[in-house]
Amino acid sequence: MNGNNTWRHRLYVMIFQTDTVAGRRFDSTLLVIILASLVTVVLDSIDAVHQNYADVLAYIEWGFTVIFLGEYILRLYCSPRPLRYAFSFYGLVDLLAIVPGILALYYSDAQYLLIIRIIRMLRIFRVLKLSPYLKQAHYLLDALRGSKQKILVFLLGVCTLVTVFGTLMYVVEGPEHGFTSIPKGIYWAIVTLTTVGYGDIVPKTVLGQIISSMVMITGYSIIAVPTGIFTAELASAMRGEQQQHDCPVCNKGSHEPSAAFCSRCGNALFKKME
Amino acid sequence: MNGNNTWRHRLYVMIFQTDTVAGRRFDSTLLVIILASLVTVVLDSIDAVHQNYADVLAYIEWGFTVIFLGEYILRLYCSPRPLRYAFSFYGLVDLLAIVPGILALYYSDAQYLLIIRIIRMLRIFRVLKLSPYLKQAHYLLDALRGSKQKILVFLLGVCTLVTVFGTLMYVVEGPEHGFTSIPKGIYWAIVTLTTVGYGDIVPKTVLGQIISSMVMITGYSIIAVPTGIFTAELASAMRGEQQQHDCPVCNKGSHEPSAAFCSRCGNALFKKME
Amino acid sequence: MNGNNTWRHRLYVMIFQTDTVAGRRFDSTLLVIILASLVTVVLDSIDAVHQNYADVLAYIEWGFTVIFLGEYILRLYCSPRPLRYAFSFYGLVDLLAIVPGILALYYSDAQYLLIIRIIRMLRIFRVLKLSPYLKQAHYLLDALRGSKQKILVFLLGVCTLVTVFGTLMYVVEGPEHGFTSIPKGIYWAIVTLTTVGYGDIVPKTVLGQIISSMVMITGYSIIAVPTGIFTAELASAMRGEQQQHDCPVCNKGSHEPSAAFCSRCGNALFKKME
Amino acid sequence: MNGNNTWRHRLYVMIFQTDTVAGRRFDSTLLVIILASLVTVVLDSIDAVHQNYADVLAYIEWGFTVIFLGEYILRLYCSPRPLRYAFSFYGLVDLLAIVPGILALYYSDAQYLLIIRIIRMLRIFRVLKLSPYLKQAHYLLDALRGSKQKILVFLLGVCTLVTVFGTLMYVVEGPEHGFTSIPKGIYWAIVTLTTVGYGDIVPKTVLGQIISSMVMITGYSIIAVPTGIFTAELASAMRGEQQQHDCPVCNKGSHEPSAAFCSRCGNALFKKME
Repeated sequence: MNGNNTWRHRLYVMIFQTDTVAGRRFDSTLLVIILASLVTVVLDSIDAVHQNYADVLAYIEWGFTVIFLGEYILRLYCSPRPLRYAFSFYGLVDLLAIVPGILALYYSDAQYLLIIRIIRMLRIFRVLKLSPYLKQAHYLLDALRGSKQKILVFLLGVCTLVTVFGTLMYVVEGPEHGFTSIPKGIYWAIVTLTTVGYGDIVPKTVLGQIISSMVMITGYSIIAVPTGIFTAELASAMRGEQQQHDCPVCNKGSHEPSAAFCSRCGNALFKKME
Repeated sequence: MNGNNTWRHRLYVMIFQTDTVAGRRFDSTLLVIILASLVTVVLDSIDAVHQNYADVLAYIEWGFTVIFLGEYILRLYCSPRPLRYAFSFYGLVDLLAIVPGILALYYSDAQYLLIIRIIRMLRIFRVLKLSPYLKQAHYLLDALRGSKQKILVFLLGVCTLVTVFGTLMYVVEGPEHGFTSIPKGIYWAIVTLTTVGYGDIVPKTVLGQIISSMVMITGYSIIAVPTGIFTAELASAMRGEQQQHDCPVCNKGSHEPSAAFCSRCGNALFKKME
Repeated sequence: MNGNNTWRHRLYVMIFQTDTVAGRRFDSTLLVIILASLVTVVLDSIDAVHQNYADVLAYIEWGFTVIFLGEYILRLYCSPRPLRYAFSFYGLVDLLAIVPGILALYYSDAQYLLIIRIIRMLRIFRVLKLSPYLKQAHYLLDALRGSKQKILVFLLGVCTLVTVFGTLMYVVEGPEHGFTSIPKGIYWAIVTLTTVGYGDIVPKTVLGQIISSMVMITGYSIIAVPTGIFTAELASAMRGEQQQHDCPVCNKGSHEPSAAFCSRCGNALFKKME
Repeated sequence: MNGNNTWRHRLYVMIFQTDTVAGRRFDSTLLVIILASLVTVVLDSIDAVHQNYADVLAYIEWGFTVIFLGEYILRLYCSPRPLRYAFSFYGLVDLLAIVPGILALYYSDAQYLLIIRIIRMLRIFRVLKLSPYLKQAHYLLDALRGSKQKILVFLLGVCTLVTVFGTLMYVVEGPEHGFTSIPKGIYWAIVTLTTVGYGDIVPKTVLGQIISSMVMITGYSIIAVPTGIFTAELASAMRGEQQQHDCPVCNKGSHEPSAAFCSRCGNALFKKME
């Protein structure tokens, strides 16, 4: 283990981990830079700002690209497995953070690069993921994972409802009231069922208003379904990472994480191998 | 049992069941065809597409009708009880999938057939119902069934609220602000209570705006009711019911989920193995 | 007990109770008549109907008034305590059902009578209240009663939020963008916080849009509060009318309705007095 | 302890506490005065009222300022630690209640003072906080405190979603459909995700409407998250925590709510009295 290797390892600990003071300082600095680069993108999109400061903002953007490029090279350099890092999720996000600045050299007015520049935002999560403060996200993700299948069934039902009602309204209201096609009707049905209600397309005929009322009350009622699914899952996730193991005597199904005996019948949960 | 019968039975297993490889393949194919026929209907409703490809789409629709007709005949042929199938829910849906194509021969521009063509979508559920992946829908249906009566009471209350407030607004705001009749007022009340809020009819007078505010806050608060009903049902469906286990002394059959002693006779439900 | 008295009592049982066949028949007939009178009111408010059938509907309305008058007199006659009935909630609602028809003799175009005519709707609940089918409403009312105080605190918080944000927007946006006074601002804040969003008054300035965004996200988040309150109450109401009584040994606080022994420690809940 | 001190102490008890009859009377009077001053502010903002009664309202406002000034001096005088009171939260709110009246002497048309005058509303909470009636707010605050971290994670996720979708729509729809900048796009995304749906900015292109549909369904589904978090916390706050009771054998201090046996050593937690 020569000096170079040690230095690389210390760099690795600082950049990729969060346990040391230097690591935390690095993360905070990165967070500020990412947020600053986001603000630049947002400001640049405002017309009044763009007309007066387009050049300044372009230079600043260039600066950020150089910083992110440097960081990317550092990460590649100090990572024990550079290729694995390069093709990991965050490795690709890090790469994407550099691409728009370089592409902008060739295509001067590439609006679509904006999206990529905003995707940098995802890098915030890398920094935050490491923070011990946000461990609570765990429960939420657990509950979401547990309710995935039920949510899918629910979304399938919503799709069906929306298609049927959208078609019905297209037939009932017709193009003269803004329902120019079935996709438009489906768009209207989504706007109505989710209780967003822009009001850009509204029913004009009596029959159309009766159908709309049905859609609205349906939407208002079935909002209960995802909430119910998620709440039930979250409640069971919070009740503890209870041990799922049937008691051999009384069949009580879940126990405290460190239970040796069943809290209902007092029998040993696991027979001692003698 | 002759060869013909065996062949019919094997067809039956393939078409109606999902346990065999052939059955699953048949279901997947059918799913793709149904989705394709839906896409055709949707595309045909878009004006730009209809003007250029009306003929092509009509031919494709004909193709789908022929396929569905063939499938329907096959189902009738291989079903052990053809009449019972024909009058079952899915039998009627299958029949409906063929009708519009045939009716279109006589009525060239029958817009209302669109609805029937969309109802084909329900056939998707037949295919999915068989899938073991969607067993989770069970919990949802259980919870919905358990909360049916409570939901009905809730809907009755909503109807009353909406009628009273709709009439009130018709009297307060009057036809000059868009509340041309009581049904229109009820429509407005539904739009507001469900928090959809199109904005096509809005209160203009001060009194009207005060009443609206009451309706909105009511609507915002009572959204809690269906959610609460459904969540409570789902949580109890997921938690599992009372423990079914006879008390060895008094034979009381069901106990609190984590009871260690019988609440009637006080004896231990589970004998400790010593 | 003479014949007259017996007859009055039998009439009382039929009209006020629901256990006999005659009583149920009376209730059903009344339900149909009330609904028919509601439909008449609603139809009369539609301009096209009013212009053509105003006379017919007025006669029908007269018929209903006569029927309700007869019913009211019968109720007064057969009730054991006529005065107590007359001043009970439903007694007053029954009286209100007759008033508009009689008042209409003197004031020919009394629009405000409409409200009273709609209040007849409340009589539906009298009929339904007796029905054994709707016992489920009990749970809902229990949960609502249990959460009354918490809901009040919540509504007080909403009122404060809405007043503060309404004033803020009145100052920030000003009359030129539709925020002509603080009450208007409060109306806007209610429309936004409840996620109704008519769009009749919308923020135009940048600062106004930032404040709106805060109001929306607040509204979107605090919808959780009434739902949470109600769900938690309903769940505990459904968990059973558990007995609230501390076990003298282990302090377990709630027990099965008919528990004689604690299900946790097996001790008698109530000491036998010897 | 001389007479002056006793008098000061009695004043202190009356003004700062709520246990005595005089204290409750003082609180009620103050509540009415605060509400009256709020009504004055609100009325003054209505144009029709302001033009006719501006002078009267100004005098009334002066009266309130004098009353609040007197109350503030009294509080300072009778408080045992005047400085600590002056810099406490409510001390500052009390001071703010006087400032606008005095500032209005120098700046005749200071609209921004309105906000400060509305902040007086917060004083209502001081009065109510003391009331034993509103102890229920405790549960709500407990649940909110318990869910703070999860809510923060949720809000961070919402911010990311809203920024990404806002940028996407800015690129897809462009300034010609009202999406003039990324902040405007973010504003639209918040309006849509929270299901408010003003309709002041709506997607016009097909791609934009598809993206909107995704945003709406996302918003409709993730409303489940804060509700679920809050409900689960509230339910657990209402159910009560783990049982605090030392196991007589192994001294394990907390157990499952209905544990009959210690889950660590298997001994009965409660000895049966025989």
